[in-house]
Amino acid sequence: MASIDREGIDLNSDVGESFGRWALGDDEAIFESVSSANVACGFHAGDPGTIRATCRAAAIAGVTVGAHPGYNDLSGFGRRFMDISPTELTDEVIYQIGAVQALARAAGTSVRYVKPHGALYNAIVHHTRQAQAVVDAIRAVDDTLPLVVLPGSEIQRIAHAAGLRTVNEAFADRAYNPDGTLVSRRETGAVLHDVDDVVEHVLRLAEGKIRAIDGSMVRVNAESICVHGDSPGAVAMAARIRQALEREGIAVRSFV
Amino acid sequence: MASIDREGIDLNSDVGESFGRWALGDDEAIFESVSSANVACGFHAGDPGTIRATCRAAAIAGVTVGAHPGYNDLSGFGRRFMDISPTELTDEVIYQIGAVQALARAAGTSVRYVKPHGALYNAIVHHTRQAQAVVDAIRAVDDTLPLVVLPGSEIQRIAHAAGLRTVNEAFADRAYNPDGTLVSRRETGAVLHDVDDVVEHVLRLAEGKIRAIDGSMVRVNAESICVHGDSPGAVAMAARIRQALEREGIAVRSFV
Amino acid sequence: MASIDREGIDLNSDVGESFGRWALGDDEAIFESVSSANVACGFHAGDPGTIRATCRAAAIAGVTVGAHPGYNDLSGFGRRFMDISPTELTDEVIYQIGAVQALARAAGTSVRYVKPHGALYNAIVHHTRQAQAVVDAIRAVDDTLPLVVLPGSEIQRIAHAAGLRTVNEAFADRAYNPDGTLVSRRETGAVLHDVDDVVEHVLRLAEGKIRAIDGSMVRVNAESICVHGDSPGAVAMAARIRQALEREGIAVRSFV
Amino acid sequence: MASIDREGIDLNSDVGESFGRWALGDDEAIFESVSSANVACGFHAGDPGTIRATCRAAAIAGVTVGAHPGYNDLSGFGRRFMDISPTELTDEVIYQIGAVQALARAAGTSVRYVKPHGALYNAIVHHTRQAQAVVDAIRAVDDTLPLVVLPGSEIQRIAHAAGLRTVNEAFADRAYNPDGTLVSRRETGAVLHDVDDVVEHVLRLAEGKIRAIDGSMVRVNAESICVHGDSPGAVAMAARIRQALEREGIAVRSFV
Repeated sequence: MASIDREGIDLNSDVGESFGRWALGDDEAIFESVSSANVACGFHAGDPGTIRATCRAAAIAGVTVGAHPGYNDLSGFGRRFMDISPTELTDEVIYQIGAVQALARAAGTSVRYVKPHGALYNAIVHHTRQAQAVVDAIRAVDDTLPLVVLPGSEIQRIAHAAGLRTVNEAFADRAYNPDGTLVSRRETGAVLHDVDDVVEHVLRLAEGKIRAIDGSMVRVNAESICVHGDSPGAVAMAARIRQALEREGIAVRSFV
Repeated sequence: MASIDREGIDLNSDVGESFGRWALGDDEAIFESVSSANVACGFHAGDPGTIRATCRAAAIAGVTVGAHPGYNDLSGFGRRFMDISPTELTDEVIYQIGAVQALARAAGTSVRYVKPHGALYNAIVHHTRQAQAVVDAIRAVDDTLPLVVLPGSEIQRIAHAAGLRTVNEAFADRAYNPDGTLVSRRETGAVLHDVDDVVEHVLRLAEGKIRAIDGSMVRVNAESICVHGDSPGAVAMAARIRQALEREGIAVRSFV
Repeated sequence: MASIDREGIDLNSDVGESFGRWALGDDEAIFESVSSANVACGFHAGDPGTIRATCRAAAIAGVTVGAHPGYNDLSGFGRRFMDISPTELTDEVIYQIGAVQALARAAGTSVRYVKPHGALYNAIVHHTRQAQAVVDAIRAVDDTLPLVVLPGSEIQRIAHAAGLRTVNEAFADRAYNPDGTLVSRRETGAVLHDVDDVVEHVLRLAEGKIRAIDGSMVRVNAESICVHGDSPGAVAMAARIRQALEREGIAVRSFV
Repeated sequence: MASIDREGIDLNSDVGESFGRWALGDDEAIFESVSSANVACGFHAGDPGTIRATCRAAAIAGVTVGAHPGYNDLSGFGRRFMDISPTELTDEVIYQIGAVQALARAAGTSVRYVKPHGALYNAIVHHTRQAQAVVDAIRAVDDTLPLVVLPGSEIQRIAHAAGLRTVNEAFADRAYNPDGTLVSRRETGAVLHDVDDVVEHVLRLAEGKIRAIDGSMVRVNAESICVHGDSPGAVAMAARIRQALEREGIAVRSFV
């Protein structure tokens, strides 16, 4: 696990989530604030045209492209756990990464990391066999691709065991427990809504610590911070975060 | 356009067309007879697990893997014309080729050519804009990939203009008009059913000529002959074709 | 063909076009202006939850619910012609109508007419076999359901021959040729953008005539006028249309 | 819970599971043996044309048609648990039943019961909220439709509480624990393969008891027995079961 570079941190955001007639998010606007683009791969969102256009916009904006594979569940946006077999999951993740690799190349850039999406991201925090399946997929495609993970998760452990580089992720708008885990969304205060609270939280994250929900200070080693971009408010929040980081002399830059 | 190698010819077949619970074809059996595998890419058939297993079986059998992209129409098996915009089609074809490239690599092989599927194959015989879209996709992915085409088609003309290598295809079980075009499936006698007729037709094809439906002899310059593998009878037919070619001293071998 | 009721006319709009995570249109806002709701059936747009919620909102607003079946093409939003066989098309339309019937009943209302969507609507203006397929579907489901059609179309002719009631449709924002047909979207001036032009056009439509693109007056017998609701501007336009009609003493009311 | 009619029992089988190009099962053959047809509804299997043809064949054979809704998971054949929200599940089940109702009517028959499919069937044995969602769907569509359930399941309890009729189901080829529950498929001996064993098991089921895996006799109150039809061996097995029942004077007949 890499130590934090105090002089810089990555901001990542989910993008390329439009599908056909349906637009979602303002990817070009969010690219003014983030350094890494988690590009949907077509299974939970993102048709081929959207993927290519998103990769192109990222390339123009100097934003690093990552593949953002999810469950094969368009109507659920990949947000519902699916009890898929590990073998099938491995092949579905390979398929998705390969598809985005080709479109990224067509757009003049390339896939430089992988971050699983939604319910898959959440499942592999603890689901050993699905976590192993994702690791197997990345090894099959390109074992130099870093994998963005929740620190302390099962996927982090398995990725390390397999020799993959992992990138610790934190969340700009999520409260933390004293043990460094996320406060469950089912509990009050799990999501930070106030812009100033979020900015303060992010600045602490960049220094390697956060104030937990009980007020105690906790060490959190994050190389990348996830910000949202799927609403006008989210885009403005991301811009505020970037400004605050740069004012503190912390560069927003990709981890690759 | 390459001249015919009298000492060898390619046999290709559509494979990897199972989907989830549904099995179709006996790919391992057909791999005993053909030299090129047109692997479905997930849009008209072929889930990721099927694609990978098919590529693996091809690699073991020494059969060359090609991508077989089709329209995004699972319920229609890619056999229905879709009036998709050229830009969208280009991106859909890139997506499909990229996905199969990644799974082929995971299976220890690689995509070495492209052959469009079904209604897309038929459309680009004459549909200039869709033909251009397919050519644009291959150029974006890898402009050294040969493209399997119907001789005299619009796609052949456009591919040549773009500097792509094309591979002329003929059909083992289709009757031809005196001008070298295929007899329409709507007409009587369009499809050859008798094994001996098919074998004789293929042997002539390997020599660069066929007997047209009116009995006249016509020159046909084919580098690859398409055979079917989706029924027990089709597998047996393919085996007969291969035996007949080899008995004549004509090697069955990939065009790449 | 019913004669125009000078005292009233129907306004219809496409609704229920959200899908999963993706929102489209403001159905509740448009229901303040229209009298008929063309509800997407899940094949080109509209997941089951969206369909039910849309039917519920229509019921509360007193808006008549119609089924709006389309091609099975989610990524293309049903806007791309598909060369589907008539038999398959009939069964796909039955499936879609039946699904919406059940959800409409669960929402306290019912399906009271059918209007085909997008590329299917356009195809059956001239495609005899697909038009017959749609008519066959409605006869199989409920031959008392009126079918919204373009006047003079093949679908109108075939529906009449089958004894179905048809409802003549005109478009609020489309220019017409002197022969009463729509000006092709490929030509300049095909779509009216100015609100005042649209309102004047609709008022004339309610009186059974329009000014054609060459300036001549043409008789057009429309029982229902299609207005859009998929943007804030469209919703405001619909409200303006309704106000103008009511100011002229023309009630906006369903044709059923 | 209805008591067993000693003079007759229902045999049900999953049918209509083909999809587009992919054939599965021999529905017409299985209709010679069973009295109830669980017709796939398009989400896990069964395109509209298949559904209609299956309903038509059932009508001709005098077999009762039931809707067999599943998770929206075509590539997984509805066999993977999905953590879908109850509200969405209710609407998806209504959609599926409504679609099949319309196609059944077009085929000259009607939907007369509901049996959930695959992973959904298994989930609602214990998953209270999904079970409630299925019950809500049936109440919204038609609260006189019987629901086929595993005896002792959560779905049975909730259906009764809602006033729905349930039909107890047993399995022709599954071993039972001494407490009347099914032996898990993960354990040895869970599935009976020998035809004579299956026939003996079914004859006992028809008498209201079975021999559990430990050799003890257990009372099992089944109104319907599930048999498979998706392979030549399965069709032959179903025929043997029917012959054995009729030889014992037990009529094979629908529970409705």
